[in-house]
Amino acid sequence: MTAELDFENWTCPVPLRDTPAVVMGHGGGGAMSGELVEHLFLPGYGAAGAATELADCAVVTAGDTRIAFSTDSFVVKPMFFPGGSIGDLAVNGTVNDLAMVGATPLYLSAAFILQEGTAMADLGRIAQAMGAAARAAGVRLVTGDTKVVDNGSGDGVYVNTSGVGIVPDGVDIAPHRAAPGDAVLISGDIGVHGVAVMSCREGLEFGTTVSSDTAPLHGLVAAMLATGADVHVLRDPTRGGVAASLNEIVRTARVGVDLVERDLPVPSEVSDACNLLGLDPLQVANEGKLLAFVPAERADEVLAAMRAHPYGAGARRIGTCVAEHPGMVVARTALGGTRVVSMPIGEQLPRIC
Amino acid sequence: MTAELDFENWTCPVPLRDTPAVVMGHGGGGAMSGELVEHLFLPGYGAAGAATELADCAVVTAGDTRIAFSTDSFVVKPMFFPGGSIGDLAVNGTVNDLAMVGATPLYLSAAFILQEGTAMADLGRIAQAMGAAARAAGVRLVTGDTKVVDNGSGDGVYVNTSGVGIVPDGVDIAPHRAAPGDAVLISGDIGVHGVAVMSCREGLEFGTTVSSDTAPLHGLVAAMLATGADVHVLRDPTRGGVAASLNEIVRTARVGVDLVERDLPVPSEVSDACNLLGLDPLQVANEGKLLAFVPAERADEVLAAMRAHPYGAGARRIGTCVAEHPGMVVARTALGGTRVVSMPIGEQLPRIC
Repeated sequence: MTAELDFENWTCPVPLRDTPAVVMGHGGGGAMSGELVEHLFLPGYGAAGAATELADCAVVTAGDTRIAFSTDSFVVKPMFFPGGSIGDLAVNGTVNDLAMVGATPLYLSAAFILQEGTAMADLGRIAQAMGAAARAAGVRLVTGDTKVVDNGSGDGVYVNTSGVGIVPDGVDIAPHRAAPGDAVLISGDIGVHGVAVMSCREGLEFGTTVSSDTAPLHGLVAAMLATGADVHVLRDPTRGGVAASLNEIVRTARVGVDLVERDLPVPSEVSDACNLLGLDPLQVANEGKLLAFVPAERADEVLAAMRAHPYGAGARRIGTCVAEHPGMVVARTALGGTRVVSMPIGEQLPRIC
Repeated sequence: MTAELDFENWTCPVPLRDTPAVVMGHGGGGAMSGELVEHLFLPGYGAAGAATELADCAVVTAGDTRIAFSTDSFVVKPMFFPGGSIGDLAVNGTVNDLAMVGATPLYLSAAFILQEGTAMADLGRIAQAMGAAARAAGVRLVTGDTKVVDNGSGDGVYVNTSGVGIVPDGVDIAPHRAAPGDAVLISGDIGVHGVAVMSCREGLEFGTTVSSDTAPLHGLVAAMLATGADVHVLRDPTRGGVAASLNEIVRTARVGVDLVERDLPVPSEVSDACNLLGLDPLQVANEGKLLAFVPAERADEVLAAMRAHPYGAGARRIGTCVAEHPGMVVARTALGGTRVVSMPIGEQLPRIC
């Protein structure tokens, strides 16, 4: 017997939202993460949820002050990797979420969920890394919490950092502001953090000289804003990489993006590792890079300001925002064809941050 | 051979801080949690750490606004218990941390660490509970994050909520303000949340009609402040119970507290359960109660305001702040003697919140 599809009553299959249980992909920052927010968290929260978007960073008003408020949990495995640790990520990740709305980061919280049996020496190294990263970023760790879960119920150290910053008057940086004609810029090499973590992952070890790019980006943002250019959108392409960030932006703003593939700064170590593992560098996580949408006529000026900053030395233009194919990111390939750069569904490799 | 102690070179044994690994007690909110903050986190953070205290809630300045900023992770097991769920706790717990410095809670973040395989239906119920609790408390969930960890590396759902509120002008509520002569008040029955969770804990089940007291307390605080009384200290006695909270306060303020044991509101279901399990009700967690230190001459007025509020109906005076025995909490027993109410070391039962 062959069943005939009932197209009269056919509805689009929604395997992601209809899974009866959480799967790894729901934590990947791609389409499945988005569906969890859209179809579970926001309906669950109801009127208490943010009406617009459950964004990486909220801009809200407290008294007379516009503040940025952001949260991120870090579960990266292993906790120490070339170029950094979960402690560096936890500080820089939240500093960067604040920076991507143009805020000056001020205060962080640090909440730990520790597995019983975690070595004190490891926890101490993580605390030191957080202190060093916070000093480098000019933020203070002002409040905290520690919970311990029994052996088998956790996995070393999970860290949540939330952050508060001030959004200067007149600054309005948000995904919906992406506009046709904008130049799309990246601050440097892509895929570096993801490859660094993968290279020392149990069962995956491979030789590479790549270190994580984890870095605080608010200084770079300040340098860009100092040009006076009207920066429309900023985004740090972490989980899901450049592909996820650009897809989120084009869907929010109902615009398209045309990338030029040969202009993407992919270091040879990253492309080698991606070839080895069958990954797309556009989907690999970054922890010290930003994407920017700026009016094309100011792009050279903003790029010059970025290149003059240590964290933007490798900045370049990688594409253009267009009115065509709204909601879609398209890349012109080296062979002269085009391909759709799709939203990652789940994740290539879990627990990269 | 018997080894002789070398008293010349003897130093006080510090088993808590010298453990090579994290143990459950480090998450209990008692002495071991305090040592972890004092001897590991603060030295690790260095100049980036809060110089004063890594408190439940920080009061900091953003622009021209005094804001309260707080964080808490929730790992309660089971996730659903009589009277509430991890979702209620996550919202009310952070709302209450903000309320304990007199702040008006405004915005919460919600960051989830989910174990692969967690039932979507459970996650949905938790999100709904968070939405309902946020609406009841008048706060909005404005930013979030979701991570998934592989099966065996987590335990259902962990939720971190951080919160931001505004501290009204002139309000200065802090542990160091506890002063000899202050009346020590409690807003109602103690030990209720802890007993409710224990009653349905695997391996511990016992019959009880007790439901968790989880509730948002900022309305009660507003009613207390509306009396115009100079409220010196507020604290919600969660992990470690009344014993841990009072000990923290007396150590910070270098004062003592005399409790009158027969004035402690311990419901018979709680004392029965504590007798069964060998627990001290003073060390059992509460999630909808507050302790207050207020000048004795205003105590009756504040108590009247508390009793007029739904969450303070059972408010009463339980003791007095004294200059004697600084750093120590002493209880006058029903038999006319006195006993020291010590700081809990670790925790009676882990993962109560």
